Amino acid sequence: MAVTGPHASEVVATALQSALVDLIDLSLAGKQAHWNVYGPHFRTVHLELDEIINDVRLWSDTVAERLSQLSVSPDGRARTVADSSKVKDVGPGPIGADKVVALFAEQIDAVSQRIKDSLPDLEEDLLSQDDLIAVAKGLDMHAWFLRAQTA
Amino acid sequence: MAVTGPHASEVVATALQSALVDLIDLSLAGKQAHWNVYGPHFRTVHLELDEIINDVRLWSDTVAERLSQLSVSPDGRARTVADSSKVKDVGPGPIGADKVVALFAEQIDAVSQRIKDSLPDLEEDLLSQDDLIAVAKGLDMHAWFLRAQTA
Amino acid sequence: MAVTGPHASEVVATALQSALVDLIDLSLAGKQAHWNVYGPHFRTVHLELDEIINDVRLWSDTVAERLSQLSVSPDGRARTVADSSKVKDVGPGPIGADKVVALFAEQIDAVSQRIKDSLPDLEEDLLSQDDLIAVAKGLDMHAWFLRAQTA
Amino acid sequence: MAVTGPHASEVVATALQSALVDLIDLSLAGKQAHWNVYGPHFRTVHLELDEIINDVRLWSDTVAERLSQLSVSPDGRARTVADSSKVKDVGPGPIGADKVVALFAEQIDAVSQRIKDSLPDLEEDLLSQDDLIAVAKGLDMHAWFLRAQTA
Amino acid sequence: MAVTGPHASEVVATALQSALVDLIDLSLAGKQAHWNVYGPHFRTVHLELDEIINDVRLWSDTVAERLSQLSVSPDGRARTVADSSKVKDVGPGPIGADKVVALFAEQIDAVSQRIKDSLPDLEEDLLSQDDLIAVAKGLDMHAWFLRAQTA
Amino acid sequence: MAVTGPHASEVVATALQSALVDLIDLSLAGKQAHWNVYGPHFRTVHLELDEIINDVRLWSDTVAERLSQLSVSPDGRARTVADSSKVKDVGPGPIGADKVVALFAEQIDAVSQRIKDSLPDLEEDLLSQDDLIAVAKGLDMHAWFLRAQTA
Amino acid sequence: MAVTGPHASEVVATALQSALVDLIDLSLAGKQAHWNVYGPHFRTVHLELDEIINDVRLWSDTVAERLSQLSVSPDGRARTVADSSKVKDVGPGPIGADKVVALFAEQIDAVSQRIKDSLPDLEEDLLSQDDLIAVAKGLDMHAWFLRAQTA
Amino acid sequence: MAVTGPHASEVVATALQSALVDLIDLSLAGKQAHWNVYGPHFRTVHLELDEIINDVRLWSDTVAERLSQLSVSPDGRARTVADSSKVKDVGPGPIGADKVVALFAEQIDAVSQRIKDSLPDLEEDLLSQDDLIAVAKGLDMHAWFLRAQTA
Amino acid sequence: MAVTGPHASEVVATALQSALVDLIDLSLAGKQAHWNVYGPHFRTVHLELDEIINDVRLWSDTVAERLSQLSVSPDGRARTVADSSKVKDVGPGPIGADKVVALFAEQIDAVSQRIKDSLPDLEEDLLSQDDLIAVAKGLDMHAWFLRAQTA
Amino acid sequence: MAVTGPHASEVVATALQSALVDLIDLSLAGKQAHWNVYGPHFRTVHLELDEIINDVRLWSDTVAERLSQLSVSPDGRARTVADSSKVKDVGPGPIGADKVVALFAEQIDAVSQRIKDSLPDLEEDLLSQDDLIAVAKGLDMHAWFLRAQTA
Amino acid sequence: MAVTGPHASEVVATALQSALVDLIDLSLAGKQAHWNVYGPHFRTVHLELDEIINDVRLWSDTVAERLSQLSVSPDGRARTVADSSKVKDVGPGPIGADKVVALFAEQIDAVSQRIKDSLPDLEEDLLSQDDLIAVAKGLDMHAWFLRAQTA
Amino acid sequence: MAVTGPHASEVVATALQSALVDLIDLSLAGKQAHWNVYGPHFRTVHLELDEIINDVRLWSDTVAERLSQLSVSPDGRARTVADSSKVKDVGPGPIGADKVVALFAEQIDAVSQRIKDSLPDLEEDLLSQDDLIAVAKGLDMHAWFLRAQTA
Repeated sequence: MAVTGPHASEVVATALQSALVDLIDLSLAGKQAHWNVYGPHFRTVHLELDEIINDVRLWSDTVAERLSQLSVSPDGRARTVADSSKVKDVGPGPIGADKVVALFAEQIDAVSQRIKDSLPDLEEDLLSQDDLIAVAKGLDMHAWFLRAQTA
Repeated sequence: MAVTGPHASEVVATALQSALVDLIDLSLAGKQAHWNVYGPHFRTVHLELDEIINDVRLWSDTVAERLSQLSVSPDGRARTVADSSKVKDVGPGPIGADKVVALFAEQIDAVSQRIKDSLPDLEEDLLSQDDLIAVAKGLDMHAWFLRAQTA
Repeated sequence: MAVTGPHASEVVATALQSALVDLIDLSLAGKQAHWNVYGPHFRTVHLELDEIINDVRLWSDTVAERLSQLSVSPDGRARTVADSSKVKDVGPGPIGADKVVALFAEQIDAVSQRIKDSLPDLEEDLLSQDDLIAVAKGLDMHAWFLRAQTA
Repeated sequence: MAVTGPHASEVVATALQSALVDLIDLSLAGKQAHWNVYGPHFRTVHLELDEIINDVRLWSDTVAERLSQLSVSPDGRARTVADSSKVKDVGPGPIGADKVVALFAEQIDAVSQRIKDSLPDLEEDLLSQDDLIAVAKGLDMHAWFLRAQTA
Repeated sequence: MAVTGPHASEVVATALQSALVDLIDLSLAGKQAHWNVYGPHFRTVHLELDEIINDVRLWSDTVAERLSQLSVSPDGRARTVADSSKVKDVGPGPIGADKVVALFAEQIDAVSQRIKDSLPDLEEDLLSQDDLIAVAKGLDMHAWFLRAQTA
Repeated sequence: MAVTGPHASEVVATALQSALVDLIDLSLAGKQAHWNVYGPHFRTVHLELDEIINDVRLWSDTVAERLSQLSVSPDGRARTVADSSKVKDVGPGPIGADKVVALFAEQIDAVSQRIKDSLPDLEEDLLSQDDLIAVAKGLDMHAWFLRAQTA
Repeated sequence: MAVTGPHASEVVATALQSALVDLIDLSLAGKQAHWNVYGPHFRTVHLELDEIINDVRLWSDTVAERLSQLSVSPDGRARTVADSSKVKDVGPGPIGADKVVALFAEQIDAVSQRIKDSLPDLEEDLLSQDDLIAVAKGLDMHAWFLRAQTA
Repeated sequence: MAVTGPHASEVVATALQSALVDLIDLSLAGKQAHWNVYGPHFRTVHLELDEIINDVRLWSDTVAERLSQLSVSPDGRARTVADSSKVKDVGPGPIGADKVVALFAEQIDAVSQRIKDSLPDLEEDLLSQDDLIAVAKGLDMHAWFLRAQTA
Repeated sequence: MAVTGPHASEVVATALQSALVDLIDLSLAGKQAHWNVYGPHFRTVHLELDEIINDVRLWSDTVAERLSQLSVSPDGRARTVADSSKVKDVGPGPIGADKVVALFAEQIDAVSQRIKDSLPDLEEDLLSQDDLIAVAKGLDMHAWFLRAQTA
Repeated sequence: MAVTGPHASEVVATALQSALVDLIDLSLAGKQAHWNVYGPHFRTVHLELDEIINDVRLWSDTVAERLSQLSVSPDGRARTVADSSKVKDVGPGPIGADKVVALFAEQIDAVSQRIKDSLPDLEEDLLSQDDLIAVAKGLDMHAWFLRAQTA
Repeated sequence: MAVTGPHASEVVATALQSALVDLIDLSLAGKQAHWNVYGPHFRTVHLELDEIINDVRLWSDTVAERLSQLSVSPDGRARTVADSSKVKDVGPGPIGADKVVALFAEQIDAVSQRIKDSLPDLEEDLLSQDDLIAVAKGLDMHAWFLRAQTA
Repeated sequence: MAVTGPHASEVVATALQSALVDLIDLSLAGKQAHWNVYGPHFRTVHLELDEIINDVRLWSDTVAERLSQLSVSPDGRARTVADSSKVKDVGPGPIGADKVVALFAEQIDAVSQRIKDSLPDLEEDLLSQDDLIAVAKGLDMHAWFLRAQTA
C-alpha cells in the first residue's frame, strides 16, 4: 500500500544534493580544525568551530530530508563527500588559528555563494528555495564572524 | 479611536481561509485517529499523530492570525470546518494503524499540494506567502514520515 | 492474539461522549473567539482564551481515551461535533470582548452543569466519574474567572 | 512523646496491602521483560515498559505511604511479594515482544480489576478510595495501550 | 451584563470556609515555628515546615477559590483567622524542635480530621468533596512525617 | 553547648517587628482581595495581587529571619497580626477591582513610608537597614504599578 | 590576511539601514511609553510594550548584522536615530494608555509598511528580503494586537 | 535474519547476575525501610533511602542490560530475588531509624565487598569490570554516608 | 480616584535622569560597536559587549522606573539621549577591537564615576541611592574586565 | 613559549586513530540510513539512528581530543575516512528498515570488537584505555538494541 | 594603551583583603569538616556545610574582584591564607557533628563581626561597603542556622 | 553502634592525599590567577580558569570522600595545602595572561603526571584507581587546552 509523494525536478535535486555534500564536508573539516588548531586564539576558535558545526549539521539534515520528501535519495556517505565536495581540504596535521580563521571564512563564504547562485533555478519549488535561503543566511553569519577576525 | 490596518485582497483571504479550514480538520481527524487506532504499530502511530497535531494547531493559529492582521475575519467553527474542509473523513469507529498511516500520508500531502498551488497567487503579499511556505514545508515533512512507512 | 478489556455501560458511554463533543466544540469556539475578539480588553481575553483552550484540549483527550479504555469508540470528528454539540455557536465575524466574556462564562458553566448532572449516573464506574469531576472542577474555575469580569 | 494517628480498618488495610504487592510485582516483572524482550517491536516495547514501571513505582509509594499514615505497616519485601502477589510470573529467559504485550495487557487489566472490586469496601475511607481510583485509572490507560497493540 | 453562576448550600459553604480558616492559620503558625524553632533538629524541622507551608498555601487557594466559584465570599482576613480558627496557638517566643514536631503532628491531624468529618455532608457537591479529599490526603501525609519523628 | 550570637537594640527590633506584622497582613489582605475581586479588570488585578503576595511573603521571611539572627523572637501569629498591624482592613465580601487597586496603592505606599521613616534609626545596624531598604524599594515598585492604574 | 566578503548594492543597504533606524527608535519610544504610561489599562500595556521591545531589539540585531555581513557599516547611534528615524515622537511626560495603544498601532504599522514597500527592490538579494519579511510579519502581529484594542 | 552478538563466560555471567539480584533486593529492602522507619531522624533517613534506591535501580539496569548485551538472560523476578539474594532481610513492621542506618551501612558494604571480590575474575571482560567498579564506587559512597551516622 | 505617591526632590530627580540618559546611550553605543567591531579579538569583544548591553538595559529600566515611582517622568527618547548624554560618541564605521576596548573601559568608568559623585547628594533618599550603588558596582565590574585587556 | 606535553606511543596512537575513523564513518553511515530508510518500522529506526549518531559523535570527539592531548594529530577528514574506515558501506539509495537494523547491528558490533581487541595493548596508558572502554560499552548497548530487533 | 581605573585607599584595601582571606579559609575549613564530620547528624551537617561553602566561595569572588576593580591585587594563595586568616583551625582528623556545628557557628559569627567592625571605615566607598554588607548578611544567616542547632 | 568499613593501605592513602592537596592548591592558584590576570587575552583566560576551577573542586571532593570511605581522614586545610602541595606558587600581584597560560599548562600537566605515576601502585584498589584515572583524564584535557595556546 505504498503511497506516492511529490518529486523534485533534476535542477532542484542537484542544488540540494550539492549543498548537502558541501555542508557535510564543512562539518568534517570543521571538526578536523577543532581538534588540530593551535595558537594564542586556540580557545575562541576551538569553541567557535563547534558552534558552526552544530549549525551545519542541522542544515545538512534539513537539506537531506527535503530531498527525501521529494522522492530523491540523498547521498551523504564518506566516499561521496570525499569525491564530490567542493570544499577545500583543510589538510593533515596541526594548523594555526589564524590560518583556520581565514580558511573557513573563505570556504563558508564559497558554500554560501554556490547556494545563492542556485536560488534563481529554484523558483519552481519555493519550499526548497526557502530552505536554502535559510542555510545561506546562517552561513553568511558565520562567514562574517570569521572574516571580521581577519581584518 | 479605532485604528485601521492593512487589508487582504480576496485571493489572499481565500488562500488563507482555505488553508485554515483544512488545518483545523486535519487536527480533528488526527485526534480521531489518535484515539481509535489499533494494531501492532499502535504506539508509534498514536504518538506520531500527536506530534502532527501539535504542529498543525500552531499552523492554524499562524494562518488565522494572519487573516486577522489583514482585517479579514477567520472562520474556524465546527460547522464551517465540517462544511468546507477538503480533508477526507477518517470515518467512525476503530481504525487499523496501517490504514491510518496511508490515509494521513495522502491527506497531509493533499493539503500541502493545495497550499503550494496557491503560492503563485500570493506574490502580491510576500508575508502571507512566507507563512504558507512554512506550513507546507512542515506538512511535507510529516507526509514523508508517514509515506516512508507505507513502502 | 487480541486481548479483551473492560466495557462501558451505555449510560457511562453516553456521558463521556457527550462531554467529549462539548469540550471539542468549546475548544473550537474558543479559538474562533481568540482570533476574532476586539475591544479595550482584547489582550487579556485573547490570552485567557488560550489558557482555557489548553485545558479543554487536555480534558477532551482524557475523556476520549477513557472511552477507548472502555472499548467504546470516541467520535470527535468535525461533522459529529457540528451536529451534536450543545455549545452555543459563537457566530461569524469580529466579536467584542465583553460579549466573548459573557458568552463563554455561560457556555462553560453550561458544559460543567451537564457534566455534574451526569455524575449520579456514574456511581457504577467511579473511575470515569473521577475523570468528569476533575473536568467539571476545571470548568468551574474558568467560568468563575469569566463571570467575575461581568460583574 | 509519641503522637497517635488515624488507623485503618482491616478491610482498608487489606485492600491497600494487596494492591501494594501487585504493584511491586508488576514493576519487577516489567523490568524482567524490559531486559529480556526481543523481536521487531523490541524498541517500542522496551521503552513502553519503562514508562509503565515509572508509574507503577510511584503508585506503590502512594499506596504504601497511605498504609503508614493509617498506622499499618506496609510489607513490600521480596519474599512477601514472591509469596502473595497475584500477578502471573513472566517466566525466565528471552521473551518475544508480542507475548510481552499480551501478557502485560492481561496482567495490568487484572490488577486494575482487583482494585476496582475493592472500591465499594472503601466507602468508609474516601481518601484511600481516592488513591486507589487514581491508580486504577492509570493502570487502565497502560492496559489500553498494550491491548490496542494486540488487535 | 452580570452572569450568574452556581451557588453553594450552607453546609458546603460552612465546610469550605472552616477548612480555609484552619489552613491559613496552619500556614501562619507554621511560619511562626519556622522562625522560632531551635534544637539539634533545627535544620530539618525548619525545612520541613516550609514544605508544609507551601502545600497548605496552595490548598487554601483551592478552597477559597472553590467558594468564589460557588458565589460565596471566602473570608481569610487576619481578624477572621484569629477569631475562628480551631488550630491551637503555637505561642510566642523560641520553641524547641521536638515540641514543634509534636504540636504540628497533632494540629495537622486535627485539621484533617475535621475535614474528613465534613465529607459525608458534601455528597451533594462531589466537586467540593473532591477538593477536600485531596487536601485531607495531603495533610495526612505531612502528619505522618511528623508523627513518625515522635515515635 | 549553646552558642550566643548578636543582639538587636530595641529600636532595631521594633522596626523589624513592625515591618513583619505589616507585611504578613498585606499578604493576607492581598489574598482576601485576590479571591473576592470582581469587575472588568478582574483578571489583571487577580494576577497582579499574586505577584505582590509572592514578593511580600519573601520579604516577611527576610525580616523575620533577620530578627532571629539578632536573638529576637519574631511574632507573626494570626492574633498578633490582627491586633498590631497598621494595614487597613480590606473588609468582608466581594470588592470591585477599582476599589482594590486604590486601596492597595495606598496601603502598600503606607507600609513603605513607615519603613522609610524607620531607616534613620537603623544606622547602627547597616545590615538590617539594608534589608528594609530592599523591602521598601520593592513596595514602591508595586505601589507605582497600582497607582498608575488610578490615574 | 584580511578576507573579503559579499557587498550590498545601495538599494539593499538603504532598505536595511532605514529599517534599522526605525526599529531602534521603536524600541526607545516603546521604553519611553513603558515608563510613562498610566490609566486603567496600565498593567497590560506596560507588559505588552516590553514584549514588543524584546522582539524589536532582536530584529534590529538581525538587520544590523545582515548589513555587516554585506560589508556595509550599520549606524545605530543615538544621534543617527534621532536625526533619521521616521517613527513619530512619543513626546515627553506621562501618557495615557489609550493614546499609547493608538500611537503604537499606527507607528508599528507604518514601519511595517515602509519595509513592505522596499521588498520589491530586494529581489536581487533574497536573503536580505527574507530577513525583512520576517521582521514585517512580526510587526504586523504586534500592530494587530494593538489595533484590536482600539476598536 | 537474527544477528549474533558477544557471549559472556560463566564467571562473568555469574558475577553480573549475583550483583543484579543483590541490587534489586537492596532496592526493595530500601523501600521497605523508607516506609517503615520511625524515630527522631525519620525525615533524613526517609529521604536518604530514596537517594540510595534511585542509584541502586539505575545500577541494576546497567548490570542487567550488560548481561543482555552478552547474550545472557538476566533474572530479576521476585521469586529469584527472594531465593538467591544475599542481602539480609530487613524484617516486617516498623523499624527504628538507628537500626535502619546500621543495617543498611552493613548490607551496602557487604554488596560492595562481594562485587569487589569478583573484580579479579573479570579481567577478561574489562567492560563488565568497568560497570561493576562504577557500581561498587557508588555503593561505597552510600555506605560511608550511613556508617558516619553510626559513629 | 487618582492616588498620589512619593515625590523626588530635584537633586534626586537630576541624578536619576542623568544616569538614565548615560545608560541608554551606553547601550546604543555598545550595540554600534557590537556590529562594527573587527580584528583578531572580534569574537570575544562582540560577545562581551552584549553582556554589557544586557546589564545596562536592565539598569536603565531600574533607574527609569525609580523615577516613575517618585512621580517624575523619565525621558529616554532618542533625541533626549542624543542631546544630553555625556557618553563619548563611538563614531561611524568599522572600529578596531582594541579601540573598542579602550573606549568602553573609559566611558563605562566615566559613567560610574558620575554616579558615584552623585551618591552623597542622595542621603535623603536611601532607596534611590541603593539603586545607583548597585548600578555603579556593575559598571565597575565591566570597566575592570575591559581595562584588564588594555594592560 | 610553547609548552610540551605527554606523547602517545605508536600502538596507542594507532588504536585511537583507528577508532576515530570508524566512529566518524559510523556517524556518516548512520545519517545516510536515517535519511534513506523506509518500511513499516521507519519511524522507530529513523529515531534510533539519531540517538546512535549523537553518541557516536560525542565519542569521536573524546577519542580525537585524547589524541591531541597526547601530541598526536587526529585525522578525521572525509578522504581519510573514506580510505581507511573499516565500516561496511551502507550503499546508495533507499534501504529497508530491516536491512538497516541488521547492517548496523553487525557494524556497530564489529567496531566495538576492534576496540576491545586493542585494549590489551593499552595497559601502558590507562587513561586512553578507559576512554575506549567507555566507547565500547556504549557501542555494545546500541548493538544489543538493534540485534534484539532481528530475533 | 593601558587604561587607568579607580584606586582603593589603604583602609578599604585592608578591609577587603582581610575579608577575602577569612572567606577562603572558611571555605577550606568547611570542606575539611564536610569530609571529616561524623555522628547521628552527619548527613544534615554534611549537606549544610556545602551550602555554606557555595555561598562563601561566591562571596570571596565578589570581594577579590572588587579589589581588582580598585587596582589592588587580591591575594588568596594557600600560603597567604594559612598565614593571615583569623579563622580558627578546624584541626586534623574526624570531628563530631556537634563540635562542627558549634565551631562554625562561632567562626562564621566572628568573620561577620570583623566585617561589621570595618563598615564605618568604608563610608568613603559605598560600593565596597555595600558588598561587605551583603556578605555579612549572608554570614549572619548561616551563623543563625548553626547557632539554633546548639540551643 | 558504630559500623566499621573498608580501610585503605598506606600506598593508596598516600596517593589520594597527595592528589587532594595538589588539587586544592590548583583551585586556589587558579582563583589567584583568575583575579590577577591581565592582557589582551584577559577575558578568555579569566573564563577558562573558572572552568578549570569548577572541575578541580569537584575532583578534590571525589578524592577526599574516597579517602573517608576508606576510613582515612583527608586533610585539606590551608596550612596542610601550603606546606605539602607540589604545585608551583603563582606568586603575588598582577600576572600577564601569557604567563598564566604557560604556568598552568605546566602545573596541570605535572599534577596529572604525578597521578599517572601512582596508578600502578593502585592495582589493589581498582575503585580508587578508577577515580584517579578520571581525574587525570580531565586534567589532561585542560592541560591540552592551555598548551595549545602556547604554540
